Amino acid sequence: MLLLYDLDDPLRLGTTLNHPGNNMLHSEKIFTMLNYKLTYFNMRGRGEIIRYLFAYSGIKYEDNRIEWADWPNIKPTIPFGKVPILEIDGVIIHQSLAIARYLAKENGVAGKTPLEQALVDAIVDTIDDFMSMFPWAEKDHDVKKRAFNDLLTNVAPGLLQDLENFLGNKNWLVGESVTWADFYWDVCSTTLLSLKSDLEDSNPKLWVLKRRVQALPAVAAWIQQRPKTSL
Amino acid sequence: MLLLYDLDDPLRLGTTLNHPGNNMLHSEKIFTMLNYKLTYFNMRGRGEIIRYLFAYSGIKYEDNRIEWADWPNIKPTIPFGKVPILEIDGVIIHQSLAIARYLAKENGVAGKTPLEQALVDAIVDTIDDFMSMFPWAEKDHDVKKRAFNDLLTNVAPGLLQDLENFLGNKNWLVGESVTWADFYWDVCSTTLLSLKSDLEDSNPKLWVLKRRVQALPAVAAWIQQRPKTSL
Repeated sequence: MLLLYDLDDPLRLGTTLNHPGNNMLHSEKIFTMLNYKLTYFNMRGRGEIIRYLFAYSGIKYEDNRIEWADWPNIKPTIPFGKVPILEIDGVIIHQSLAIARYLAKENGVAGKTPLEQALVDAIVDTIDDFMSMFPWAEKDHDVKKRAFNDLLTNVAPGLLQDLENFLGNKNWLVGESVTWADFYWDVCSTTLLSLKSDLEDSNPKLWVLKRRVQALPAVAAWIQQRPKTSL
Repeated sequence: MLLLYDLDDPLRLGTTLNHPGNNMLHSEKIFTMLNYKLTYFNMRGRGEIIRYLFAYSGIKYEDNRIEWADWPNIKPTIPFGKVPILEIDGVIIHQSLAIARYLAKENGVAGKTPLEQALVDAIVDTIDDFMSMFPWAEKDHDVKKRAFNDLLTNVAPGLLQDLENFLGNKNWLVGESVTWADFYWDVCSTTLLSLKSDLEDSNPKLWVLKRRVQALPAVAAWIQQRPKTSL
């Protein structure tokens, strides 16, 4: 395995290994340059939380955006046949939230304690359950429109109120610093707002949180530079 | 907070705290007796993975099984209005998989490395995605039956084949010892088999794994003693 120091910013390079017996190094911690390749469609969707975590960490990765036309050929080559996947030095992790949680832990934004981590996971799954209710792949335009309207009009307000109650007067959803639950709220609410902009008329604390996330320099830079896609 | 040693089996008591300055204790580690209360319906469903982890760990907990008739009164008192929830000394964690992951980490069955943990999470979410496709709450009997038949006949075989490929010739789904991904396979496949018993005719390695999980003494004891419910 290739072992590298980045003297400019070694902490950016990811996983640490203990080599107490290696006298050639100045520290017990050495840093490995892992190759990260994210494969997903050219959309935010289920890939964006992963891209946020890469942006926040400063870790370099290949953002492999596949074309819809190529998907039928790619699908059979992927374990479980679904994207996003993240290849880490050739090991494939699937499932967007499993990938995101891995990166969140590596970068200190998974929650500071086991209990905080559980609450972060709970908030992420709560938001994800709602996003998963939308029939994204429905081909009948009218059926899809009715289902989307119902979710955005009749279900979203309750979820947003519950999230706002949970947030309360805190700066971040869980604990005293940003976690990937805050990132996931920002990522998913961007999609919700693109579908129904007046959601922002209620639950002001949640939207202040969204602006707080988007003001983080690494997140702001990523939003500026990312490919513009509707979803 | 109440701090207790259990001289018979202190490791059973859960979370450890470092109190290096406390000379009255024989060890730097002291054990806290946390009060765990699980609230869910009287069914396996989304609560069973949590009960498995309690069974495996030997940690005592209150298995609070609520009646359907009481649910409308209980629902508004619960953040996010869904069960299962786990109360840990009064702190409420919601979302079954967030609760289970917390207990899995506390008990050493979440995966040995960050990468193993990510793969465990990925397998759990893959199984969970499938279980979540079933319209459990559908009231129209014919609609429900058609949807269940379609999932069990047309979708399940592909998932089972993918899982069997992932398992390969290993003893456990991820790494070299049991994880909660194996527990989740056992829990969910018990429900799948109750709906379609001939699923067991294919993918023999997966069913050997199921028997391996159910042969773990703590799991075997729990299966023996748990209330018998159809789901």
